[in-house]
Amino acid sequence: MQTLSLRALSQVRLLGRQPDGSGPVPLFYTASGFECIFTGSELALCIEAGFALYEPWISVELNGAWIARFPVQAGRSEVTLFRGMTPGVPKHIRVLKDVQAMHGDPDHYLLLTGLRFSGGDFLPLPEPAYRLEFVGDSITSGEGAIGAAGEEDWVSPFFSAVNHYAQMTADALGAEWRIVSQSGWGLLSSWDNDPRCRVMAYYDTVCGLADGPHNAALGAQQPCRFDAWPADAVILNLGTNDNNAMENPPWTDPATGRQYAQRPTPEHLAALEQSAVDAIKQVRARNPQAWILWAFGMLGAGRMDAVLRAAVSRAAAEMNDSRLCYLPLPAATAGTLGARRHPGVECHRQAAQALTTCLRSILPPRG
Amino acid sequence: MQTLSLRALSQVRLLGRQPDGSGPVPLFYTASGFECIFTGSELALCIEAGFALYEPWISVELNGAWIARFPVQAGRSEVTLFRGMTPGVPKHIRVLKDVQAMHGDPDHYLLLTGLRFSGGDFLPLPEPAYRLEFVGDSITSGEGAIGAAGEEDWVSPFFSAVNHYAQMTADALGAEWRIVSQSGWGLLSSWDNDPRCRVMAYYDTVCGLADGPHNAALGAQQPCRFDAWPADAVILNLGTNDNNAMENPPWTDPATGRQYAQRPTPEHLAALEQSAVDAIKQVRARNPQAWILWAFGMLGAGRMDAVLRAAVSRAAAEMNDSRLCYLPLPAATAGTLGARRHPGVECHRQAAQALTTCLRSILPPRG
Amino acid sequence: MQTLSLRALSQVRLLGRQPDGSGPVPLFYTASGFECIFTGSELALCIEAGFALYEPWISVELNGAWIARFPVQAGRSEVTLFRGMTPGVPKHIRVLKDVQAMHGDPDHYLLLTGLRFSGGDFLPLPEPAYRLEFVGDSITSGEGAIGAAGEEDWVSPFFSAVNHYAQMTADALGAEWRIVSQSGWGLLSSWDNDPRCRVMAYYDTVCGLADGPHNAALGAQQPCRFDAWPADAVILNLGTNDNNAMENPPWTDPATGRQYAQRPTPEHLAALEQSAVDAIKQVRARNPQAWILWAFGMLGAGRMDAVLRAAVSRAAAEMNDSRLCYLPLPAATAGTLGARRHPGVECHRQAAQALTTCLRSILPPRG
Amino acid sequence: MQTLSLRALSQVRLLGRQPDGSGPVPLFYTASGFECIFTGSELALCIEAGFALYEPWISVELNGAWIARFPVQAGRSEVTLFRGMTPGVPKHIRVLKDVQAMHGDPDHYLLLTGLRFSGGDFLPLPEPAYRLEFVGDSITSGEGAIGAAGEEDWVSPFFSAVNHYAQMTADALGAEWRIVSQSGWGLLSSWDNDPRCRVMAYYDTVCGLADGPHNAALGAQQPCRFDAWPADAVILNLGTNDNNAMENPPWTDPATGRQYAQRPTPEHLAALEQSAVDAIKQVRARNPQAWILWAFGMLGAGRMDAVLRAAVSRAAAEMNDSRLCYLPLPAATAGTLGARRHPGVECHRQAAQALTTCLRSILPPRG
Repeated sequence: MQTLSLRALSQVRLLGRQPDGSGPVPLFYTASGFECIFTGSELALCIEAGFALYEPWISVELNGAWIARFPVQAGRSEVTLFRGMTPGVPKHIRVLKDVQAMHGDPDHYLLLTGLRFSGGDFLPLPEPAYRLEFVGDSITSGEGAIGAAGEEDWVSPFFSAVNHYAQMTADALGAEWRIVSQSGWGLLSSWDNDPRCRVMAYYDTVCGLADGPHNAALGAQQPCRFDAWPADAVILNLGTNDNNAMENPPWTDPATGRQYAQRPTPEHLAALEQSAVDAIKQVRARNPQAWILWAFGMLGAGRMDAVLRAAVSRAAAEMNDSRLCYLPLPAATAGTLGARRHPGVECHRQAAQALTTCLRSILPPRG
Repeated sequence: MQTLSLRALSQVRLLGRQPDGSGPVPLFYTASGFECIFTGSELALCIEAGFALYEPWISVELNGAWIARFPVQAGRSEVTLFRGMTPGVPKHIRVLKDVQAMHGDPDHYLLLTGLRFSGGDFLPLPEPAYRLEFVGDSITSGEGAIGAAGEEDWVSPFFSAVNHYAQMTADALGAEWRIVSQSGWGLLSSWDNDPRCRVMAYYDTVCGLADGPHNAALGAQQPCRFDAWPADAVILNLGTNDNNAMENPPWTDPATGRQYAQRPTPEHLAALEQSAVDAIKQVRARNPQAWILWAFGMLGAGRMDAVLRAAVSRAAAEMNDSRLCYLPLPAATAGTLGARRHPGVECHRQAAQALTTCLRSILPPRG
Repeated sequence: MQTLSLRALSQVRLLGRQPDGSGPVPLFYTASGFECIFTGSELALCIEAGFALYEPWISVELNGAWIARFPVQAGRSEVTLFRGMTPGVPKHIRVLKDVQAMHGDPDHYLLLTGLRFSGGDFLPLPEPAYRLEFVGDSITSGEGAIGAAGEEDWVSPFFSAVNHYAQMTADALGAEWRIVSQSGWGLLSSWDNDPRCRVMAYYDTVCGLADGPHNAALGAQQPCRFDAWPADAVILNLGTNDNNAMENPPWTDPATGRQYAQRPTPEHLAALEQSAVDAIKQVRARNPQAWILWAFGMLGAGRMDAVLRAAVSRAAAEMNDSRLCYLPLPAATAGTLGARRHPGVECHRQAAQALTTCLRSILPPRG
Repeated sequence: MQTLSLRALSQVRLLGRQPDGSGPVPLFYTASGFECIFTGSELALCIEAGFALYEPWISVELNGAWIARFPVQAGRSEVTLFRGMTPGVPKHIRVLKDVQAMHGDPDHYLLLTGLRFSGGDFLPLPEPAYRLEFVGDSITSGEGAIGAAGEEDWVSPFFSAVNHYAQMTADALGAEWRIVSQSGWGLLSSWDNDPRCRVMAYYDTVCGLADGPHNAALGAQQPCRFDAWPADAVILNLGTNDNNAMENPPWTDPATGRQYAQRPTPEHLAALEQSAVDAIKQVRARNPQAWILWAFGMLGAGRMDAVLRAAVSRAAAEMNDSRLCYLPLPAATAGTLGARRHPGVECHRQAAQALTTCLRSILPPRG
């Protein structure tokens, strides 16, 4: 058995936003990981993890079927991906990080340090038909997409990259996908009105919201190289927490004592619309060729529906840009909610159907 | 009990394309009919029908549930819509013609001659959220959407306006809808290469493909008054028979002996693309405000996928028109085929989901 | 075209309990009717109906697909079953009465008077794999199995023989089936405590609960000839209205002024259990070879579950009879209720799955 | 954090057949494991495993939801079941062994060595409504119930205790369940005609088919104490491999050179029927109170249907035993097959529905 770094294996595809670098591969956002096709009889993953509060979880897919999912131990460990299988037959492995980048736990990290195997070849993967990027909040972090309906605790096991509308959409289209998301965050503030919790403020870095010196050392604060992975579509699913914030008490800045609150006044709704217009323009600046979809409503659209439709229309007009659209997604119902009153797997499936339909319509056919 | 003409009852809404006129109400295309809300205990429909080959069928919905469906007798008859129900309670009735306009049977006709009732009021119907027009072939005629999977005979019972993607889409959106369609017809010819069987050649009249002097007397050849029913979206689902024609023998003009055949040559495919561009421009000219969708693929897309995508793109460019799109629809599978190897109800349901998603995205929200 | 009586056509199978007789064929209970296989191109049904309150409805199945359903006109009429179909090809037609025998409308009747056709042969039908009899109340009358969820009126359109657990069970097993049922009736009384409304009091006649001289003249009061149609299983689905009666005011005999009420006292529950034991013994006496299933719970089982299980156990012990069992059926939920707060088609489907599983287990395999 | 042995925690319920003993808890058959309700914030499982060929896999359910599944490392390890959850709130944990006892790998073993936790209480579990034992072959080992449809390799990841008809049946009824099974084995021989591979030969020991001195030391060869866990029903699902054996070449005894082959001759089918009668009598002797169901057909019933029905009837007659029945299970179709051409999760679900219906009918109601 030999162990090689994933970077040394040119046929292994790293998944998710990656900094430039040469050592172990850091996984920041949900659904980062790797995939490969290997013909040997046994393959193991060498991995390293750390955390203070929230342990990382990963999922393993073998030939497209979800076969394993578990928390990664702190420190270094080795995980069997498969063993005892017929040599010479290609096996397609995909490993995905199930939990999000954890802004609230700067000690949380996960590194792919190597693949261990003997015999066998790594075969070339087919090129993805499309590249899709999903930008959002807890919904896009897969929060509640696994676990019992009544769960209340905000803990790692209830996050999933697999029971997830982005994975289902991408797999239906033969696409590769990336996620940029953080639970509780929004356009102008988090659900509890903290104005520092704006997802788009971190869009231009690899994963700037992964805090602290260790994540910085791993490359989280590097600028994202958008040209190295030109997206065919960027799906924005932001606004749910802004809507929630309007029902919640103001947030008080501990430094200044100033309060901040989103409220459904005409002036604030105009500011919210402007923030959505700004988000679209920021995405367009980084992704000149991509379709930009604002796909919204899995936890209800409420007053955001009008705000976001107006923002999409205005952005289209101001940029004279026809590659924009607004896509309402089916809202979770009593029957499709998952854990933590978040969308369950069935709600994710419905959202994926809507997105797949829409993307099939607007993207050029491939594959 | 009194009998009044439907035209005398201002709260009754006629459904489907209608000529100007003052007498009995002719029903030409699939899904023409009427709806009303009536508070009396009993309501009956007076109707008149005729045919040489293909009898008309109608469906009755009571409060949104499909409760009756049957062939209409030749001559005059009266059909109970409901009786013995609680007076004062509003009942919503919708009656739809299940079969298409029958180009091949000029004696086929159906007239609504009156409503019979005693007591009760006709209440105002809510305005439809949208107006949708569907233009197509046998798929849009609902051929095979009812009946056993193995059926081969081309007869009236196997047509349905209810197990139908247009009805499902419209009902999901709260829309009124109209259909223009003919089984076997296409853009440039019918499935057997007859170039006279082009649906768009009859688009500008009420129902010009309903042949013969009797239909003419009923108003089928009148120009369609597009401004009286401004569509929010026109859905084109044409091309399946052009694709089929390429596999079939040429058609010989009985008058001239000349042959006509669609063939997959570059020249002909360009002509086909041009015919789709022309169709879009014709629809745009009649419907200046409408979104135009080419929604295609319920019996497979084949080479038409590329032809139609190119046509939509070119029409958008030539007209500088951003209210156009192409929407691939899920193809029928062994499990979703219906009678006569046509889409069954499950395939129609999948197409309706795709269309509903797309229309929710592009139409302004209402209701 | 010639018209022959159904009795003259030996290959036509009459469905449902029938009196001896030679003229038109009366249809009493739900799901009575006829089936045949005919090779001609056209077939029409001659029919005669009457009613004071509740019009009869029928359904037509062509080659196993439900293609028509409508109210039958009062007086004589002719109904096209199919026309214009390919001569020589066998077509399987089944016509079923959708509404129950109407105890409350002695003028309600329906007669099959003839079949009209030209050319073609009536082919032999395959023997049914089993014969099943279902005995029950409104659930077994198919009340609410069609129509909108909010419907309240007790009228004919909301009864169905097709969206029905008996039909689904029988078709899954290749069986012929018969129904004996009356809405609102029970073991010891109707839902409103009228002790005359006991289904089993009429079990031994063809359809004794069809009241009045006209029904008597049609043969409703004739003894049922059980030996002419030996059932393989009799499914009892009675008790729901006895349970309801316990919550309702007493019924006062208009003749004597005496009151009658079912109440959940130990004494009365014992009497109810005894009535179920008696029902089982009565069914056993008439059907010596049949399995007897008490299948119960589509509108909830409540206290009847214990009563009926005890009755089945005791009957088995007292008769030393091992061909008895109790089968709980899935209760309707918010999602599976139909019209009039009765089981909808999905609840019927679940009940049919349970029954089919059970009958496959206990009946000898055939066909 | 303290670590206690599971035996020291009286509120922890061990699942699956267990030998008498006092040390670490061995898990032999599929679905052995443990469950508990714990109120602390963190719980970890200490575990020990070994194998030469086939590594053990386990699944973790938290509050009824499947949240983790993974291969257990060789040697000792610790697995986080949950952490960081709200103290004081009860959490229900169930851990199940996903793979079967591995007759072909005498070095395969799995031990639960302890639970690690701090704070919190172990609360009493509700008594199970019923106790169910399932006896079978690969189907009952959950082979192919997880993994991609095309998988061919016989390896551990493709076994599941969760996507499993026994788990689904037990959970629907509120029952505890145990499994006795071995892939490839049958009544009279394995699929390849080896007559030593008879499941019932090992029924009376805890897990006698787990071979070798190490398993013996763990207690696998101890007699099973049936009275300590009196089953309410024993479900036999054996016969598939006997059927397959009839199509396969004979097996040659390496010691004697004698050949053995099952063949569809009348004599052999009689012997097979006798072996099924013997199996029923053996189960009855060990489980005097239980219902015994032969539930069969998930990979098709073929000629075994008649053999097994005859065996059940004869056993009932010979023992004058009315607590026996035969239950046909729905066969896997192209759409419900899983990995390794074995029943997939949807086929298991259908089987569980049939079993649940049947058991609800015959078992006394509880809970």
